[in-house]
Amino acid sequence: MTPHAILLLSCPDQPGIVAEVSNFIHRNRGNIVDLDEHVDKAENVFFMRLEWETNGFLIPREALAGAVQDLTRPYGPMECALHFTDVRPRVALFVSRDSHCLYDLLARHEGGELEMEIPLIVSNHEDLRRVADRFEIPFHVFPVNGKNKAKQEAAELALLRANEVDTVVLARYMQILSDEFVAALPNRVINIHHSFLPAFIGARPYHQAYDRGVKIVGATSHYVTADLDEGPIIAQDVMAVSHQDTVADLVRKGKDLEKIVLARAVWAHVRRRVLTCRNKTVVFQ
Amino acid sequence: MTPHAILLLSCPDQPGIVAEVSNFIHRNRGNIVDLDEHVDKAENVFFMRLEWETNGFLIPREALAGAVQDLTRPYGPMECALHFTDVRPRVALFVSRDSHCLYDLLARHEGGELEMEIPLIVSNHEDLRRVADRFEIPFHVFPVNGKNKAKQEAAELALLRANEVDTVVLARYMQILSDEFVAALPNRVINIHHSFLPAFIGARPYHQAYDRGVKIVGATSHYVTADLDEGPIIAQDVMAVSHQDTVADLVRKGKDLEKIVLARAVWAHVRRRVLTCRNKTVVFQ
Amino acid sequence: MTPHAILLLSCPDQPGIVAEVSNFIHRNRGNIVDLDEHVDKAENVFFMRLEWETNGFLIPREALAGAVQDLTRPYGPMECALHFTDVRPRVALFVSRDSHCLYDLLARHEGGELEMEIPLIVSNHEDLRRVADRFEIPFHVFPVNGKNKAKQEAAELALLRANEVDTVVLARYMQILSDEFVAALPNRVINIHHSFLPAFIGARPYHQAYDRGVKIVGATSHYVTADLDEGPIIAQDVMAVSHQDTVADLVRKGKDLEKIVLARAVWAHVRRRVLTCRNKTVVFQ
Amino acid sequence: MTPHAILLLSCPDQPGIVAEVSNFIHRNRGNIVDLDEHVDKAENVFFMRLEWETNGFLIPREALAGAVQDLTRPYGPMECALHFTDVRPRVALFVSRDSHCLYDLLARHEGGELEMEIPLIVSNHEDLRRVADRFEIPFHVFPVNGKNKAKQEAAELALLRANEVDTVVLARYMQILSDEFVAALPNRVINIHHSFLPAFIGARPYHQAYDRGVKIVGATSHYVTADLDEGPIIAQDVMAVSHQDTVADLVRKGKDLEKIVLARAVWAHVRRRVLTCRNKTVVFQ
Repeated sequence: MTPHAILLLSCPDQPGIVAEVSNFIHRNRGNIVDLDEHVDKAENVFFMRLEWETNGFLIPREALAGAVQDLTRPYGPMECALHFTDVRPRVALFVSRDSHCLYDLLARHEGGELEMEIPLIVSNHEDLRRVADRFEIPFHVFPVNGKNKAKQEAAELALLRANEVDTVVLARYMQILSDEFVAALPNRVINIHHSFLPAFIGARPYHQAYDRGVKIVGATSHYVTADLDEGPIIAQDVMAVSHQDTVADLVRKGKDLEKIVLARAVWAHVRRRVLTCRNKTVVFQ
Repeated sequence: MTPHAILLLSCPDQPGIVAEVSNFIHRNRGNIVDLDEHVDKAENVFFMRLEWETNGFLIPREALAGAVQDLTRPYGPMECALHFTDVRPRVALFVSRDSHCLYDLLARHEGGELEMEIPLIVSNHEDLRRVADRFEIPFHVFPVNGKNKAKQEAAELALLRANEVDTVVLARYMQILSDEFVAALPNRVINIHHSFLPAFIGARPYHQAYDRGVKIVGATSHYVTADLDEGPIIAQDVMAVSHQDTVADLVRKGKDLEKIVLARAVWAHVRRRVLTCRNKTVVFQ
Repeated sequence: MTPHAILLLSCPDQPGIVAEVSNFIHRNRGNIVDLDEHVDKAENVFFMRLEWETNGFLIPREALAGAVQDLTRPYGPMECALHFTDVRPRVALFVSRDSHCLYDLLARHEGGELEMEIPLIVSNHEDLRRVADRFEIPFHVFPVNGKNKAKQEAAELALLRANEVDTVVLARYMQILSDEFVAALPNRVINIHHSFLPAFIGARPYHQAYDRGVKIVGATSHYVTADLDEGPIIAQDVMAVSHQDTVADLVRKGKDLEKIVLARAVWAHVRRRVLTCRNKTVVFQ
Repeated sequence: MTPHAILLLSCPDQPGIVAEVSNFIHRNRGNIVDLDEHVDKAENVFFMRLEWETNGFLIPREALAGAVQDLTRPYGPMECALHFTDVRPRVALFVSRDSHCLYDLLARHEGGELEMEIPLIVSNHEDLRRVADRFEIPFHVFPVNGKNKAKQEAAELALLRANEVDTVVLARYMQILSDEFVAALPNRVINIHHSFLPAFIGARPYHQAYDRGVKIVGATSHYVTADLDEGPIIAQDVMAVSHQDTVADLVRKGKDLEKIVLARAVWAHVRRRVLTCRNKTVVFQ
């Protein structure tokens, strides 16, 4: 398959942008295979995702970013990102003791569903080393306590940089990251929270759900920001429960939600289908 | 159809209750058509719902409550309720300006799905009188403002008593009831809240959901208690939304959730399928 | 609100169509408020829906169809439809004895959710005349038996024509329409089938579902074609059931699915969001 | 934890069974931790599942089956099964080339969710040997072609017997088992079919779903019987799709359904929560 280019852009909404951009691709002999656009009328923001075949495209890859900038400059302040499908995102997985999300992501990756590299796995515990070993992925343990957190995070960031990691997936990593860590990877740290946010923010959401007596539980995958559990939501799903379900049942059933919802979010992210605007996402399916 | 008796009971869990109660029905020649039981192990509470045919039952109806008390006394403090299917609950509907829940309940009632009487409709506005008129149900307007609330609620309660109303359904009634009103009808006021509680408590939940950028919205039907939106949840449901949905879309789509979820809760309540324990429900399907 | 124009088109896929059409709207000073496009790569068919404000648009309404034809002629055989939001579709409801879909559509219509006219209701029974009367909509009864079907359908078609009806909604109309009737209204007769098609085609789907022991039941809204239950599907939804559900329970619970799914299909149709291609639909949300 | 006994029984419905059986457990000092019963009124069949603590139970384990028989003999022909939670079911997994269900089951098993042994994995291809190796489970390949099927199945059955396997899980095993094989393991072969049965029976259900243009796809787990895809359904689930989804999308998304639905069925089976009656199941949650 010839590599595709993917252009994500957002800017203040105004007439003619779709025509301008699609014309640009067209007259440079790009064959558009996917065009998605969205206008947030409340915020007056325009979002677009364009995917086209680069085979025969008149503008060379290294000049494309500049050409897009020239094209869109008249439309004012624009957020723009350009990707190529033959440059796979490098994703680090962060885990603690629960294996279900880790196994799920690794199995999907091995099956070809997630087009990304997994150069390494980070944990604050030794427990899941056996899983990493089975899939032959380097496993790095950084135990975190009240005192060493800043130092350990600095070491983690250095490791991520050394491995050219661009995205971190918290696959049930039971540590809160510092604002500094998060700031180093804006909208590139994906978390799975085991509740239907904004319900049951914080610790032990299944216990909270049980105590409240809800009839449905959920899971939420979101980009991590400085505000705990408040980052832009990428994916959510739910399942029915009843008075028959104990906390242990919620935990067991919830694992299915967690792994499915996290995998959907990671898939959308690595397929470059997610744009953000303040604390919200546009996810082009 | 011969009338059925329905017994709801809850008490501290202990061995032998199921055998004791089902034996009692059996040796008095009651044919059990439904037996549901549940043990809340965290609270150590036993819940049971028994429905049996009264035709040929050896204990006359007027003596049954006493016989059940004698039977269950050894099991300690017990909450017990006895109903007969030929005594239909009398339900008052409270509405404001939105008609969708009202129409839905009236259409279900006319179609025979809800085995209850609707002696009257109460509103704080005139708007929906035409709907009540179409179904030939008395419509009473009690405008509420900052000053007259206590007086109006007293008048409403008097009206409910005069009509022997035992349950109030808030079918999008946009007024907060006073603690006194709620206390007069414990676990007998059913509300529909247009969010997936406990997310988005309070006013304008669709706006809150839009601002938070959730990917799923919900509705919750619950018994009203003194704590706003904190009462025992009877039913919940959700639907997927996306960045494409405006607040107006959420409001439109949410109406379907509201009417379905409220109707499910009312159905379970009038079929005597709901037991409560603190702020939670047991709903036997 | 100024009227919007809505253009639906489909044609063999080829480069540049999006740019061409959106340019056309743009240079004639139309403000695009919605643009949806889809390429069916398996069939190589391009689908597009454009909605724009007509206020200040340079091409007068009566010349627009011709201008669009001129524009799209180079792209080969194209299916094209042009609508204006101030010309509301005229929809006839066909019913038999079950009232839930009828009430639901009438309540939505009265509440402003369905932007259409309902000039008349047709039935093969008298039963639901009271409902029509309550909403002050003319109610026409055409009893159908083995002998008079062709004659009655001819009379119905004449009535539809006299009322300038362009869409028929079968809101639980329990008669199979002849091929001739259906051919007179291609992709303009919407049915609700009370199963998850293609499971349980034909009569008594809830009985079939019960006998098969499925754990989920559904409802399907589709355009009616000459092949029974085989027309293009517009909307589907499902709900969980269990061994506890009798056929009567399935019928009761299924009514909620039927009315919700039918309403979604009608909403999408009258908002001009449905395009068809062979036996499939493209539904732009 | 002290071992529990689990009694499953079904017989013609008649008064007094619940009382009789629960009395029996009670007077022998069994502490009932779960009691579920169901009456299929259409078939007049009574189903019951009882789980109690064996600690201090007056009847020794080896005498219990006889005692239950004596107890239930007066109630006529009864199907009865007795299990103890410290005797874990021995389950063989059958696979072909797709790894998602296999990985999912193995990860759940390792995580303690599925209380069973997995003594071996069988396949008709070598492909997934690496997965078995990673989890250190013996992997046996039996290539099947038109000629050797009977011989290979005989060898498989011998292997299952030698390993005291009582349940076979077809985790995307792409071979149809002969009637003889199925007859050797009645209601003990669990399959996952990648459609919402009875829609899309047979081969390539996602292609069928795509061609039909459905808006929802599903997966079904069922006991295998001599009639292909007609066995008793244990679990089903579905997800929404749209015109945007290609066959490849359906395949990708469907994998999540397949693994979740299969795991739910296996969980219910090994927890002894499934009873069958003709081609239907009773699944006590």
